[in-house]
Amino acid sequence: MAIEFQVLHKDKHTNARLGVIKTPHGIFETPVFMPVGTYGCVKGVSPDDLKEAEVSIILSNTYHLYLRPGHELIKELGGLHNFMGWDRPILTDSGGFQVFSLAKLRKITDDGVIFQSHLDGSRHFIGPEEAISIQKSLGADIIMAFDECAPYPAEREYIERSVQRTSIWAKRCLDVMERDGRQSIFGIIQGGVYMEFREKSAKELVEMDFDGYAIGGLSVGEEREIRNEIIKNTVPFLPEKKPIYLMGIGLPEDIVEGVVSGVDMFDCVIPTRNGRNGTLFTKRGKIVIKNARYINDIRPIEEDCNCYTCQNFSRAYLRHLFMTRELLVYRLNTIHNLYYYCRLMKEIRDAIRHDRMKEFVKKFYRIKEGNLC
Amino acid sequence: MAIEFQVLHKDKHTNARLGVIKTPHGIFETPVFMPVGTYGCVKGVSPDDLKEAEVSIILSNTYHLYLRPGHELIKELGGLHNFMGWDRPILTDSGGFQVFSLAKLRKITDDGVIFQSHLDGSRHFIGPEEAISIQKSLGADIIMAFDECAPYPAEREYIERSVQRTSIWAKRCLDVMERDGRQSIFGIIQGGVYMEFREKSAKELVEMDFDGYAIGGLSVGEEREIRNEIIKNTVPFLPEKKPIYLMGIGLPEDIVEGVVSGVDMFDCVIPTRNGRNGTLFTKRGKIVIKNARYINDIRPIEEDCNCYTCQNFSRAYLRHLFMTRELLVYRLNTIHNLYYYCRLMKEIRDAIRHDRMKEFVKKFYRIKEGNLC
Repeated sequence: MAIEFQVLHKDKHTNARLGVIKTPHGIFETPVFMPVGTYGCVKGVSPDDLKEAEVSIILSNTYHLYLRPGHELIKELGGLHNFMGWDRPILTDSGGFQVFSLAKLRKITDDGVIFQSHLDGSRHFIGPEEAISIQKSLGADIIMAFDECAPYPAEREYIERSVQRTSIWAKRCLDVMERDGRQSIFGIIQGGVYMEFREKSAKELVEMDFDGYAIGGLSVGEEREIRNEIIKNTVPFLPEKKPIYLMGIGLPEDIVEGVVSGVDMFDCVIPTRNGRNGTLFTKRGKIVIKNARYINDIRPIEEDCNCYTCQNFSRAYLRHLFMTRELLVYRLNTIHNLYYYCRLMKEIRDAIRHDRMKEFVKKFYRIKEGNLC
Repeated sequence: MAIEFQVLHKDKHTNARLGVIKTPHGIFETPVFMPVGTYGCVKGVSPDDLKEAEVSIILSNTYHLYLRPGHELIKELGGLHNFMGWDRPILTDSGGFQVFSLAKLRKITDDGVIFQSHLDGSRHFIGPEEAISIQKSLGADIIMAFDECAPYPAEREYIERSVQRTSIWAKRCLDVMERDGRQSIFGIIQGGVYMEFREKSAKELVEMDFDGYAIGGLSVGEEREIRNEIIKNTVPFLPEKKPIYLMGIGLPEDIVEGVVSGVDMFDCVIPTRNGRNGTLFTKRGKIVIKNARYINDIRPIEEDCNCYTCQNFSRAYLRHLFMTRELLVYRLNTIHNLYYYCRLMKEIRDAIRHDRMKEFVKKFYRIKEGNLC
């Protein structure tokens, strides 16, 4: 059974839409945020913590799991859901982005990519067929086509070639998929910051009929305004009946902008990574917990937050744990940030449901820029 | 209200006893194990995790909290219970052991100890009055008299002098206590491996009428047999109506031996520290989770364990998390080890209740030495 996507409601004043996705591991509403569980574990938290934050789907990294502990072992142990004790939906990326950003000495050919592991320098090859085969072993509900993620800045010629290659690879990924299986596959639109190539990439992939479409190759160094333009102008080339996923983005404000442009799915390491670095999200802006101003601050991170951290611990205590590098703080911070992101998504969905997305965006910025932390 | 201790039952065939201690923050049964929360946090776990493991009292370190974040800040924030979100009993040590084992450039006088912080080299002085004052600020249910913990090996003369000093300091601690307050105070028996000094120390402290008595200065390098002899022979000098606490010990087998000798309370960093190092306790012996034999082992750490870790995750997954240094594994390992320790204590209490402690000890060693992990 592949995923089923349904648009429940379209906001009257923006391109935002409320949807629902059914998967073999459960149903979730969109717009949705997916925390990143690189090695089959969302850093610092347990599956129960994720459920308490109302996380409904996570992303895991194919490249990392391929290297450690290996997709074949995960398959032998019953698949990724079973391995990590997570019974809700999982999306795995294709490994493409990581091969280009993490691996050493990569060599790209039309077949795929030869690269050296960033861990031990061992040599590997991943092409479209390998990426699908690995993701089949992992058993995620949604898997991604293998793409070439171009660097930024890049010449037109480079982007043109990488879009071409991404389309060829996308077709090869589809060819080895079993479309009647339990896994669905999304294609990834590339094209850098050149709208003509974004359009070309989108049209070619839409032609192939994927289960959903991702906008990839962004947040690699381009300016925020340019990125938002690309997103806004790419969405119209994608079919209304398929979910749209903006890869690797981002900050709360990036998500709000993405939703307004019509994006349904998001993932990013920001809430988890920033949590571990001691940066906490609140409606009123960020809190850098190590700051001396919190030394005797008995308030929770956020007054009206219902997360475990805010219900039980003060900023003063979190600061103390952070300064003494107590492991607990990484979990507590991550719990809050994930809760913040999930609540943001819930509020966004409610706003769309009531045709109030435009007001929501205004209020979001007004409170944030008041910055009264 | 000081603590109230009651012996509920004495085992017919050993010196083990079942008791109950009432404190301002709740009641717990003895023999009890106290996990160590050095900086006002049991490393790697949250108060909820502790409660799930049925931890009924924790220990926290005066020396560490004095340095970071400072006892005055904790007092200002409502005391240690409030600060760390733990509403069950707390015992704080006196700082004595840490001053002798961690601090740099310490100078012991009859007044107290001048030392340099192991963190930044800053100079500090702690004597008996300071130790009590700090522990009053922290607000633990049970506080410890300031003692001199002698090194091992040490000459008779050194031990004699340190026992003398410990008695003088104990008296000074009592002098500044408010015995009608919410805190109770235990005296600490010293004397190294010399029974005559243990006896002297015990008699002098018993004379002063503390709320409980600790056996200190052990597990500093002496052999296990010698230590067990000292414990067994020191207990008879302590009053039957007061709880007996064996400080800083130890392994499951050390606890079993201590109970048989009549000890009521234990603390040790072993379950938490070993958990973080990847060593897991089971009835059948230890599991070193990084071992290659667990790479595809789908069993939980321990088949009949009801902890969150064993109920949800395989050895293979824990090994993977450990090899990739995922923070979650330190929590999951710690949860299991604490659960193991608390269950051991529960089984010990049940054994005493039914006059079966002798059989329990036999079975404990038989299963452990079968080592079938």
